[in-house]
Amino acid sequence: EITLLDLELEAIEKGGYDHFMLKEINEQPRSINDCLRGRLNASEGQLTLGGISDYLSKLRQADRIIIAACGTSWHAGLVAEYIFEEFCRIPVEVEYASEFRYRNPVIHEGDILIAISQSGETADTLAAMELAKSRGATVLGVCNVVGSSIARISDAGVYTHAGPEIGVASTKAFTAQLSVLSMIALKVAQQKGTISETRFREMLAHLEQIPAKVEEALKSEEQIRGISELYQDAKNFLYLGRGYNFPVALEGALKLKEISYIHAEGYPAAEMKHGPIALIDEEMPVCFIATRDGSYDKVVSNIQEVKARKGKVIAIVSEGDVLIPKMVDHVIEVPNTHEAFMPLVATIPLQLLSYHIAVMRGCNVDQPRNLAKSVTVE
Amino acid sequence: EITLLDLELEAIEKGGYDHFMLKEINEQPRSINDCLRGRLNASEGQLTLGGISDYLSKLRQADRIIIAACGTSWHAGLVAEYIFEEFCRIPVEVEYASEFRYRNPVIHEGDILIAISQSGETADTLAAMELAKSRGATVLGVCNVVGSSIARISDAGVYTHAGPEIGVASTKAFTAQLSVLSMIALKVAQQKGTISETRFREMLAHLEQIPAKVEEALKSEEQIRGISELYQDAKNFLYLGRGYNFPVALEGALKLKEISYIHAEGYPAAEMKHGPIALIDEEMPVCFIATRDGSYDKVVSNIQEVKARKGKVIAIVSEGDVLIPKMVDHVIEVPNTHEAFMPLVATIPLQLLSYHIAVMRGCNVDQPRNLAKSVTVE
Repeated sequence: EITLLDLELEAIEKGGYDHFMLKEINEQPRSINDCLRGRLNASEGQLTLGGISDYLSKLRQADRIIIAACGTSWHAGLVAEYIFEEFCRIPVEVEYASEFRYRNPVIHEGDILIAISQSGETADTLAAMELAKSRGATVLGVCNVVGSSIARISDAGVYTHAGPEIGVASTKAFTAQLSVLSMIALKVAQQKGTISETRFREMLAHLEQIPAKVEEALKSEEQIRGISELYQDAKNFLYLGRGYNFPVALEGALKLKEISYIHAEGYPAAEMKHGPIALIDEEMPVCFIATRDGSYDKVVSNIQEVKARKGKVIAIVSEGDVLIPKMVDHVIEVPNTHEAFMPLVATIPLQLLSYHIAVMRGCNVDQPRNLAKSVTVE
Repeated sequence: EITLLDLELEAIEKGGYDHFMLKEINEQPRSINDCLRGRLNASEGQLTLGGISDYLSKLRQADRIIIAACGTSWHAGLVAEYIFEEFCRIPVEVEYASEFRYRNPVIHEGDILIAISQSGETADTLAAMELAKSRGATVLGVCNVVGSSIARISDAGVYTHAGPEIGVASTKAFTAQLSVLSMIALKVAQQKGTISETRFREMLAHLEQIPAKVEEALKSEEQIRGISELYQDAKNFLYLGRGYNFPVALEGALKLKEISYIHAEGYPAAEMKHGPIALIDEEMPVCFIATRDGSYDKVVSNIQEVKARKGKVIAIVSEGDVLIPKMVDHVIEVPNTHEAFMPLVATIPLQLLSYHIAVMRGCNVDQPRNLAKSVTVE
């Protein structure tokens, strides 16, 4: 006897989730783990990146690293800048690929360009790589799609192994990019001797625990859905963070913009006083990424400034924070980790916030208007 | 016989203008001229910057220039990055002072940090200078207020000579910063031999003509007032530009945000397809800085993309442009100049647009809510 299963292929692929985006958000413990697996072994103190093993000495000796990317990948590059500078002591310049390629940038032979792109087909990023190659730079690629153009034209690279990403707004590809870039930076730091063996092993242990912490962060979904209900009709949103969390603010804003069409903007929190604070009134929700790190106290005073002007504040805080919950309208806790890896964790509630707000507004979250999954035109 | 003049001191100081900001916008032909005078003589091919003459060899040999600033000054730094890289072939990294100081940035002894601040008292910028000094970098200052803290703690510097700026939203200080940074770059390029004598003289001639071109650009005020009437109730605004005009887009958006409290955001035009284009509908005015330069054709196609999605487009174009006026809702012409100096001219209509929109909305343009003229706290 034959039973017909009345399921659409798409529904099966969504694995029970309403949208690919939600599925991909929830996949992140596994996708990050897939990205780390076979590369990182904290208990052995091992970190192996086969794709770039022949280029480690070049990376170690690099005078400068240029990171070229667009959109969400550019945000991953901003996080990587801070990690590379802190751990490898190599100056890093992060460029919008579209800007880099059309001006006459300074590129020397000792320079290394790292191109980041989920699809590996982003036209501007490809062109930036070709420009850098033509000037004698070494070109490395960080992309998700195996065999893509960026993978093919780079001298070497590391795949993110996040699996196919269907939702147009990037989620699991972003966290996989952060994971790969963190591993590259730690490996270079180890080779260069700018990190002690003890600290290196500690950082590997932190990184290895990220999938479990992302799993933990995902548990706030119901709470985030409640917050989303309150802010679904917002016209504007600000996202503020400092240090490693500054690019997380940019990425949180971009996610909301892409799928809910709310005008959200990210800023380094300290820049607020140089202009954006004029926007703050009771109509303006402000999302702070305010986890425990080196700039925590400064972020706390930025929160106070926003509250003094009657802004509504949603704060992403480290679990156990007792100070910020007294000051703000909503807190979402995330597990602690080393501040360099906090973007991997802190970005999770922001993805969920965007997702739920967009769904409540009736938006097509998997295929937002006007956007293509990979921007293969200039 | 004594006649009592019934004028308030403030009104006299405003020189007949309704607001300091409008006075300062209109002063720019003179303030830029004051900035250039005694330093630049195009017919003689002379460019003298007494303040940094002892540091020219250091600048010439610099491996890297770091620019640290906040707010509008940070935008001036972004323009300077492109000018320095193009003309001096020195890699430039522009940093938010607040971010730079709190992480552990890579600073080498051969590095030069240029700090930019109107007031010379910006707390984060001062701290960034001190950090760079403590690591052995040479620290130069570009500020407006003579004898300010930044002037005092820098190794050397160049004053912008824009005169006192009272309006909280910076206008004439910005164009003076651009003028000074352009002169420094040209001088270093000459010393380094990365610019030919012919081109050097041509660039000086372009720069010398800027005050007259700014005067010309100011003549669009009535037209801009008309456009302002149409958009005074806008909830959001996007500003887009490429290359040298990308920072102009950021600055245009910041001006509108600061004084009209409209949520305006600037972006490099090519990044639009990586997210912000989702925001575009008939409710979203988009201001393009689309003057004739190396990326003109690309900007034209970005304009088409916005129009295809029914966005309202205001375009700042070079005088005589016949293509863009057919495509957009409003064009504002500015005189032509070399693309590296276009920010000095193209920023003028954006200042006027912000000003008139803010006045029509009944905002206190000289003292916008929540903002201080100089941010002397962290």
